[in-house]
Amino acid sequence: MHRQGKYTIILDTAPSIVASAAVVGKLEGEGPLSEEFDSIFEDDLVGRETFEQAEAQLQYEATLRAMDKAGVTAKKTDMLFAGDLLNQCTASTFGNKSLAIPYACMFGACSTMALTLATACVFTESGACSTAVACTSSHFCTAERQFRQPLEYGGQRPQSAQRTVTGAGACVISAHRRECPSVTAVSYGAVTDLNVTDTNNMGAAMAPAAVQTICRFLSDTDTQPSDYDLIVTGDLGYVGSELMAELAEKEYGLDLSLNHVDCGKIIFDRESQDTHSGGSGCGCSAAVLNSYFMKRLRSGELSKILFVATGALMSPTTSLQGEAIPSIAHLVLIEKPDVGQKAE
Amino acid sequence: MHRQGKYTIILDTAPSIVASAAVVGKLEGEGPLSEEFDSIFEDDLVGRETFEQAEAQLQYEATLRAMDKAGVTAKKTDMLFAGDLLNQCTASTFGNKSLAIPYACMFGACSTMALTLATACVFTESGACSTAVACTSSHFCTAERQFRQPLEYGGQRPQSAQRTVTGAGACVISAHRRECPSVTAVSYGAVTDLNVTDTNNMGAAMAPAAVQTICRFLSDTDTQPSDYDLIVTGDLGYVGSELMAELAEKEYGLDLSLNHVDCGKIIFDRESQDTHSGGSGCGCSAAVLNSYFMKRLRSGELSKILFVATGALMSPTTSLQGEAIPSIAHLVLIEKPDVGQKAE
Repeated sequence: MHRQGKYTIILDTAPSIVASAAVVGKLEGEGPLSEEFDSIFEDDLVGRETFEQAEAQLQYEATLRAMDKAGVTAKKTDMLFAGDLLNQCTASTFGNKSLAIPYACMFGACSTMALTLATACVFTESGACSTAVACTSSHFCTAERQFRQPLEYGGQRPQSAQRTVTGAGACVISAHRRECPSVTAVSYGAVTDLNVTDTNNMGAAMAPAAVQTICRFLSDTDTQPSDYDLIVTGDLGYVGSELMAELAEKEYGLDLSLNHVDCGKIIFDRESQDTHSGGSGCGCSAAVLNSYFMKRLRSGELSKILFVATGALMSPTTSLQGEAIPSIAHLVLIEKPDVGQKAE
Repeated sequence: MHRQGKYTIILDTAPSIVASAAVVGKLEGEGPLSEEFDSIFEDDLVGRETFEQAEAQLQYEATLRAMDKAGVTAKKTDMLFAGDLLNQCTASTFGNKSLAIPYACMFGACSTMALTLATACVFTESGACSTAVACTSSHFCTAERQFRQPLEYGGQRPQSAQRTVTGAGACVISAHRRECPSVTAVSYGAVTDLNVTDTNNMGAAMAPAAVQTICRFLSDTDTQPSDYDLIVTGDLGYVGSELMAELAEKEYGLDLSLNHVDCGKIIFDRESQDTHSGGSGCGCSAAVLNSYFMKRLRSGELSKILFVATGALMSPTTSLQGEAIPSIAHLVLIEKPDVGQKAE
């Protein structure tokens, strides 16, 4: 492992994502990616008693499915890197506690999948772990209650607002395997704050973070956007995606729009699902990466993607106190297997 | 770096804690460790407008002082690992955002200092970082408002309750230097849950986690408690410390009481400061480690300590929903400089 440029960590041995899994709720299961997910839960409570327990259950289901596919047990897993949007990250703690895996809890808001995946890869490459799991989740009902209003209030949301995805994604990381997609570089973001205060427009708050992290990575590695099949952000939504392209053009003279896909834009159908600016929540990019994109990397349909998850790091308290929304984006470079093609 | 036993990561090159700093509030500054801290803020608001801003400021002050002592700038710092008790860890984000250091936010409740320190050491040893900062904080007034009741309610607390410390601690990690204390092993804990539901008795909830992590580490490394100058927990308080000794004796036949010190017990004077079962909050072990213990490791007065910070991972929501308090403990083995003695 070595650093390249100021912000990028090159993983010389390229740890592999040996398996991944994604589980989602009903609305997500009715969307364009319906066929991609491992499980779709029609019941918002996932058979539990509270929405918080439901979100924890989603995380457990994702972790368990990913470990099953990888053929590893919790006992054989050295570390779990997980986090979520709930206060004190309780979905991660309660969801995974029965697995009793040594646990580093991380908070990156909607950037958490990239944060936990990057860290699991650094640990695996370094020898600190043989096998690690990265996992995250979100749930529409827990997020609405905590960040906006209880569902019963029937609050209206503007077109710039995104809908928190009910879902979880997890993946298992081990030392490099030729037949699995691998992570060859990661880049941790720094906090950006362009003084956006509208909590119904997170895309605008997060766009500068995405631009900063992507452009720093491209500069560190002396590469161009066209060197990658896709730049996958999660989850700027429609408003944030446009802003990202504008900002990158204006500040760095780079066209990021040609091969840009946003997890928040593709998880729902904009017209028929009434989800305004798209999906959000850690579960959005986690579920889309660990289903749709990982399948296409495994099959070789995609060779090389930059996965850049973005997070808005405010709390309801800081927003009520008039603070702006600080944002962050973490980046993971994922490449297809060295040889052959392997379906998951 | 390599793993030893099931839970322990040995840091073969032993990254060094090149500098550390601790800042605290008024009550902490009047306690037995008064002389140890870098700064004591008499004003609960630390010159800011809200308690949340005050806690963020404490974290900034600690980070800045530690970097100053280490002779590094934010620009020369590769990574910041920070977290705190506030919802969405906003003290860490808002406190450090102006430094613009690539940032991995971690949540471990009161175990956060060990969690961020361990992770900063793994990153530094692996080559992912040259220089990293680990930092955490807590504030009595933000914690009371968020976890219990606003101060204005004048709530009474039972004798088993601990008082959240107003304070922050930070340290700077770099590659091994002979004249600085070094970290030679870390061990991440798994979640324990013995079904304690009393949020006024966190010590009881956290004691099993401390016992598990310490005993697993001793087993992995084939060592005895007496092989260490001190086993420093943070922060079980009076109630939790007694329980830890009992549990270790009962479950593992180990006497952990002989060289055990708890940060929550030594930061306040039990008799004169009316702090019930002692101090708590991430800022407690962070402030005590990064002042009192680091000074004694630097001077060679202490040779080898196990720093084991414990955290209770519930949220007010999970407690109101009747869930028990899951707990965790992370461990860091810190050793004195190889040669000579150096005052900080």
